[in-house]
Amino acid sequence: MHLAEYLFKRIHQLGIKSIFGVPGDFNLTCLDYVDSCGLNWVGNVNELNAGELSAINAIAGSSADLVPVIHIVGYPSTKAMDKGALVHHTLADGDFERFARMSEQISSAVVILKDNLTAWKLIDDTIIECYRSSKPVYIGFPMDLVQAEVDPSPLGHLLVLEEPVSNPIAMEENVVNIILDRISKSQNPIIIVDGLAGKPQVLKSTRSFVENSGLPCFIMPMAKGIVDETLVNFRGVYAEKVSEPGVFEQVQLSDLILVIGPRPTDINTAGFKTDMPHIETIKFGHDRVEMRGRQVASLKTSGVLSKLSDAFDGRMSRSNSSVSAPRKLSDSFEGGNPVFPASTPPKGTIDGDSVLNAQETIFDKSPPLTQEWVWQRISTWLQEDDIIAADIGTSLFGTVWTRYPRGAVLLSQFLWCSIGYAVGAAVGAAVAAREDEQKSDALRRRTILFTGDGSLQMTAQEVSTMVRRNLPIIIFVVNNEGYTVEREIHGSDREYNDIQPWNYKLLPAVCQAAPESVRTYDVWTQADLDMLLADRQFGPAGHFNEKNPAPLRLVELHMPKDDAPESLRETISALKRQK
Amino acid sequence: MHLAEYLFKRIHQLGIKSIFGVPGDFNLTCLDYVDSCGLNWVGNVNELNAGELSAINAIAGSSADLVPVIHIVGYPSTKAMDKGALVHHTLADGDFERFARMSEQISSAVVILKDNLTAWKLIDDTIIECYRSSKPVYIGFPMDLVQAEVDPSPLGHLLVLEEPVSNPIAMEENVVNIILDRISKSQNPIIIVDGLAGKPQVLKSTRSFVENSGLPCFIMPMAKGIVDETLVNFRGVYAEKVSEPGVFEQVQLSDLILVIGPRPTDINTAGFKTDMPHIETIKFGHDRVEMRGRQVASLKTSGVLSKLSDAFDGRMSRSNSSVSAPRKLSDSFEGGNPVFPASTPPKGTIDGDSVLNAQETIFDKSPPLTQEWVWQRISTWLQEDDIIAADIGTSLFGTVWTRYPRGAVLLSQFLWCSIGYAVGAAVGAAVAAREDEQKSDALRRRTILFTGDGSLQMTAQEVSTMVRRNLPIIIFVVNNEGYTVEREIHGSDREYNDIQPWNYKLLPAVCQAAPESVRTYDVWTQADLDMLLADRQFGPAGHFNEKNPAPLRLVELHMPKDDAPESLRETISALKRQK
Repeated sequence: MHLAEYLFKRIHQLGIKSIFGVPGDFNLTCLDYVDSCGLNWVGNVNELNAGELSAINAIAGSSADLVPVIHIVGYPSTKAMDKGALVHHTLADGDFERFARMSEQISSAVVILKDNLTAWKLIDDTIIECYRSSKPVYIGFPMDLVQAEVDPSPLGHLLVLEEPVSNPIAMEENVVNIILDRISKSQNPIIIVDGLAGKPQVLKSTRSFVENSGLPCFIMPMAKGIVDETLVNFRGVYAEKVSEPGVFEQVQLSDLILVIGPRPTDINTAGFKTDMPHIETIKFGHDRVEMRGRQVASLKTSGVLSKLSDAFDGRMSRSNSSVSAPRKLSDSFEGGNPVFPASTPPKGTIDGDSVLNAQETIFDKSPPLTQEWVWQRISTWLQEDDIIAADIGTSLFGTVWTRYPRGAVLLSQFLWCSIGYAVGAAVGAAVAAREDEQKSDALRRRTILFTGDGSLQMTAQEVSTMVRRNLPIIIFVVNNEGYTVEREIHGSDREYNDIQPWNYKLLPAVCQAAPESVRTYDVWTQADLDMLLADRQFGPAGHFNEKNPAPLRLVELHMPKDDAPESLRETISALKRQK
Repeated sequence: MHLAEYLFKRIHQLGIKSIFGVPGDFNLTCLDYVDSCGLNWVGNVNELNAGELSAINAIAGSSADLVPVIHIVGYPSTKAMDKGALVHHTLADGDFERFARMSEQISSAVVILKDNLTAWKLIDDTIIECYRSSKPVYIGFPMDLVQAEVDPSPLGHLLVLEEPVSNPIAMEENVVNIILDRISKSQNPIIIVDGLAGKPQVLKSTRSFVENSGLPCFIMPMAKGIVDETLVNFRGVYAEKVSEPGVFEQVQLSDLILVIGPRPTDINTAGFKTDMPHIETIKFGHDRVEMRGRQVASLKTSGVLSKLSDAFDGRMSRSNSSVSAPRKLSDSFEGGNPVFPASTPPKGTIDGDSVLNAQETIFDKSPPLTQEWVWQRISTWLQEDDIIAADIGTSLFGTVWTRYPRGAVLLSQFLWCSIGYAVGAAVGAAVAAREDEQKSDALRRRTILFTGDGSLQMTAQEVSTMVRRNLPIIIFVVNNEGYTVEREIHGSDREYNDIQPWNYKLLPAVCQAAPESVRTYDVWTQADLDMLLADRQFGPAGHFNEKNPAPLRLVELHMPKDDAPESLRETISALKRQK
């Protein structure tokens, strides 16, 4: 078996079906093995979205926001490197490890394959590290090793990705009992789910604990999409003064806070304000549990949460219904506080028919779009299991402070904050969704992109990949004349925060999308948006099928230049006070 | 004076007039000082073209191909860094020097400003290092230092950028005399100018030596644009078997080769084949002179070349005319070999009028575009002092193996080879040309971009900057269905070398260019191109002026998918034999 085949078969075994990248001199022969190993080549338009150094910002973002990525980089031949040949794509100084050293700064493992005897083990170990760290890893692949003969027998055993949860049983039981005791003795115990709870190792046990315990559950902004927001015990977004209405007060009334996956970064915490030292707090890190600010045990959180979850399931569930069926919100919060309603119906929402009938009248008189109105309105249009990708700025802040349907997930970069990220993320998500659904009901999950004008300009060429690979993404572009998030931070009227206005609706035409495969829309007023969202030709996943495939949809939301969601404004004010 | 003012005034003193970049949280306040220090903010569309990590590939390319770049990066406040605050745009691990360490791999100096007392010196030293190394440098600028008070008095003295040419006089004279002696004793001494001769420290003395000596002068591909190709002693491109016709034979007949600025990289040397150990060779590196493969002296080449040049000027010039006036090629080569003609008239070239009159007849019958025909044809249309930016691939190989008019320069990446580079380079060049010409005759120099379809897709959003800043660039896009250079290397029919076809002519419309500010063209046949190049509305710089400003011009050259310049094919074959 050739080494390239080994690598791609190993990757295929993980359930991965697609490789993203750009062809280049040093990886071309390697790419020959992609198809034959059952993988799809997506083919990006530039290396900012997939590649070596141009991709390094994307890789750094994945490191910051904990996304496992296997970054495979074509290298010159080992012979050329041994000779120190002055080959192109290098600094011509005979140093071939510069870029690996750069990647070391942002990767959990960096290897350069050296020979056919050691390569398979390096590949296996690096892939395992990728999963366990939930961070990018880097595999340098010299082109003369592509066809190196390797022993295929290790492929006979699937890689054990999950780290064995090897918590010492006595210690784990002890900690679980202490926590159960604290919960039972408290009057208003609550859960706050934070960003690290989204890591694959903890996600399942977190969800199960939230559901089984029935404890009032809040999320930090970075945890958006981790928890089912239709659960009876779901309460909303907590971020100190930037919380959803009523949430700050509910959290303050608690006497025991269980924080799962804490990630106390500046934006997520509205300027480091979310810690509440006056309330007893138990923090569940990835591999430790902290009480009263001190680490009490080096334990895998997943094991502890699973045990806690089981305990609730049997003996102390506070919720009277089981987890399986969707539950409606009720006023069951024990502290007696008003529950934040599941979704505030946006003012002016009218059902589809009446909007269509009354189109012309409403059109003139309807108020223009505002940030506060738009995001609430769109949230009521979201469907179960929607995949939402949102770029940092008005889009991300707009969507996080709304209520999501069951199963809806959010792809965002709350820490790394590269604008343009969500455009690439939507491409990846739509590819993954289609691959998944080929085994279940077709085209059920929608991929929805919320991006800004400045953001879309950064990575606009990925619209080409959407067209090329028939990805029926629904794109909402906030067209508001520049970097509004930067205007909020500084220089609101400065020219450097302006951008060249584009006609974004022409982008699919640049990419020569077939007319029937794309629809574009201009939305200026609330009535426009109501009408659009009510249109069965536009939105509902159920409307489309194999014979009537979903098109790419691009909606320009024309919004005022200086309007921003309150959550964004308040977060920025809080950050400024920090400096 | 505020530190940001100090930095930008220092930069302004260098003759720099524009800053490229993208606004971001950590640099916004810094940007406030750009205008007031007399600098223009260009404002790029994404950070691949200007910024921190997304720009790191561009910075690495500048390091490889020896372009001095001052890379200024906004940092969080020193207070936040001292506290190890988990701020966004970091990995939230309290390590704020990761990205500086990454940049160390590709920069000749990396500093992070720490306080108002030491900052000015760090800035000055780093800028000097940038110039002297002709490589990128990195200045990390914490946001709380933007308004730090600094002593303005150092600005009273301009930075001494030029390294003092402090060659020991006796040694320099000795070496010069040895070289003059070798030249006078040889029958066919020649000059080969290579890539490093383009460094600012050596460029002037190289040109002067070539002109004064009158010795037959050849260039390596990487040296394209360094030497005046209308000089009587200019002979053409040498790259072993990939030389221009007749050139290889002329070089082989030489008995003394003076190589200025050797840069023996793989592509430049057609697979490391250009060294000629059987012929006596003197190599002029940046700071050493080598004879017979051994370093004979640590000397600044600029000093040695200036002395040699002076010697020729006085006593042993082989050329009978001085350097100032344009000279035509003649058969003056002493070895008696045929001189490669200045420009081969492309077959089928017809003057503008007859083409226009006979348009329809010719249109049908005219042969389609081929790589060999197109680049020769376009080279006859080039004007003096044109600035040409060409992307690696058919564009760069196509244009290098043609003859340029006097003063024409080429921006290319022969070593780093990032496609899409030339699109950004053209933006930079056009900005610089306009700035320069505000002090001389307006709009005389044209900026011409030769790029491929795959290349333009990489960095397409910079067309927006061309539109936004009214840069009248002439863009030729080779539209030939994908990564042709990669097809030549490997996988000619593989899907991974395909790209989504675009309608490139729509790009200015996406950017909402005013209709009168842009013209777009489709060119399918040789007659089409002849007609276009003869059209005074299209090309000549002299046609446009303040009242009739030059538009942005975008020409799609529709060419066969599997056609490539012979120089590209032969270079790739030579490289393959190397592996």
